[in-house]
Amino acid sequence: MIPTNRQILLVSRPIRSAALDNFRLVETPLLPLEGGQIRVRNHYLSLDPYMRLRMNDGASYAAPQALGHVMLGATVGVVEESRDAVFAPGDKVLAAFGWQEYGIARAEELRKVDDSRVPLSAYLGSVGMPGVAAWMGVHRILQLEASETLVISAASGAVGGVAGQLAKYLGLRVVGIAGGPEKCGYVIGDLGFDACIDYKLDSMLEELHASTPAGADAYFDNVGGNVLDAVMGRMNVYGRIVVCGRVAEYDGVNIPMRNPGLILDRRLKIEGFGVMEQKGWRTALEDLSTLVATGRLKFRESVAHGLEKAPEAFLGLLKGRNFGKQLVKLT
Amino acid sequence: MIPTNRQILLVSRPIRSAALDNFRLVETPLLPLEGGQIRVRNHYLSLDPYMRLRMNDGASYAAPQALGHVMLGATVGVVEESRDAVFAPGDKVLAAFGWQEYGIARAEELRKVDDSRVPLSAYLGSVGMPGVAAWMGVHRILQLEASETLVISAASGAVGGVAGQLAKYLGLRVVGIAGGPEKCGYVIGDLGFDACIDYKLDSMLEELHASTPAGADAYFDNVGGNVLDAVMGRMNVYGRIVVCGRVAEYDGVNIPMRNPGLILDRRLKIEGFGVMEQKGWRTALEDLSTLVATGRLKFRESVAHGLEKAPEAFLGLLKGRNFGKQLVKLT
Repeated sequence: MIPTNRQILLVSRPIRSAALDNFRLVETPLLPLEGGQIRVRNHYLSLDPYMRLRMNDGASYAAPQALGHVMLGATVGVVEESRDAVFAPGDKVLAAFGWQEYGIARAEELRKVDDSRVPLSAYLGSVGMPGVAAWMGVHRILQLEASETLVISAASGAVGGVAGQLAKYLGLRVVGIAGGPEKCGYVIGDLGFDACIDYKLDSMLEELHASTPAGADAYFDNVGGNVLDAVMGRMNVYGRIVVCGRVAEYDGVNIPMRNPGLILDRRLKIEGFGVMEQKGWRTALEDLSTLVATGRLKFRESVAHGLEKAPEAFLGLLKGRNFGKQLVKLT
Repeated sequence: MIPTNRQILLVSRPIRSAALDNFRLVETPLLPLEGGQIRVRNHYLSLDPYMRLRMNDGASYAAPQALGHVMLGATVGVVEESRDAVFAPGDKVLAAFGWQEYGIARAEELRKVDDSRVPLSAYLGSVGMPGVAAWMGVHRILQLEASETLVISAASGAVGGVAGQLAKYLGLRVVGIAGGPEKCGYVIGDLGFDACIDYKLDSMLEELHASTPAGADAYFDNVGGNVLDAVMGRMNVYGRIVVCGRVAEYDGVNIPMRNPGLILDRRLKIEGFGVMEQKGWRTALEDLSTLVATGRLKFRESVAHGLEKAPEAFLGLLKGRNFGKQLVKLT
């Protein structure tokens, strides 16, 4: 039997909601390596909300994912075969091979990672892009002070969970927003937030009010939409909002901000940021890996098994069906 | 005849639009001075959009104007009588006596101004609060670079006109937005903006596009509403928006922001600011007064004559009927 690679391609763009038929699983033969190339067996694929925006045609600042090509995404895996002097079979690497079981790259496209202190999968989550996004928001953008209250949406997710724990170490009151009692219980009980509000409840506004008795000084926004409106109503004068995601809008719905007048009334600062463009990744990753290795940064993973499950897991992620970092195990 | 003071009181709050019957003109006797007090004959009253927000009951961050009291506002005038050692009859002073012909204050509530280089009325405009707001936005908040394009709404107004001229001195491309061909002609011809768009035209979006061939890097927003939406659509990645006013909403209409998703897509920074809370007034005022005194900062005034005209002039200001800084001449 000829060894093959399995890949998932983007074959159509969503009209509104992303759907299973936007993707297609294909098998392709494994190509022989050229000089300088390295073959990696991918162990985990990262699924992240930003991928939804890339499925659109030019609607976002980021370049769209090309049709007929392998869906983009970060991966961790193990070198199987190398024609490069620095990488050897058995090396653990972080890469961006996308939704496929194997990848071929050159040395500069791979980063060796050490899975002796930190589990391999964590390099896609708490010690990877989502963790760094949380770190940058908390340590570089929001200008937090210990006496303040920070609200975080998607609080049980890969970014929000890290952001909340980091802010708790800074001494803040941290209030999460998440979907459902199970996630809220985890956010308080496991991650150590002071409170967590279930955004699905009709009493959401009242609970937000009760959980932020001194108002909100900062908001780490991963969802946009109505939750952003609700938190804006609780912002104190000189409040800061960092916009890291807008899952509420990812399926093509454009949700207006209800009361932008608050920006002036309360002298708010709102900043959208892309973690890839931030400086200081090395510092952030060192801090995050130490915290994970020493058990001071907790995280949770939702793992789908098998590449063929990636589209379904991804659609679930967009609907909040994941619980913590969404991964696909590929081996 | 006993000398009297005429005052305009706020006697009711607007249901939606402010109206003449929210105000009442009264005559009160001039009181004798107590020790340490100074009596000022007000020469000019400043009318500013922020006053509209103060007419509401607690809808804004700022404390509401109390019913039955003299409407608040900045004034310039001349000391008539003084029981303070530092102030003498004939001194020109800036104060916050509000909508009345005379005011009594103590020394710490007055600032002496020099009208030999700068006209007295300018201390309410280009060398006053509106000028400082423009200066802070341009020099402290927007982080402008000479190669960039800045868009300014209410471009012929007291704040926008100064902001545009300051940005031109920094070397930027400056595009104004104003109401009607006459204001736009003034903004380009007199103030030296590179372009000016009439927001009342159906072709506003097309003209904005044509006038910002390289997009907009920064936006000095004095109006909010649909103009904010339009400019947001032209913002470049890493664009900055300073929100200094929101005249479009001042009559109680709450206008949503149509596409807040742009904040994330284009990594925008949006900041609402109140000029009174900014540091650096002394530096700003020195810079502005030198520019005005040397003829390098131009401005225009709409002057209503007589205190009794203040309500009508104020309602006109909210509808953009003023042309440049709106004043009421009281002598």
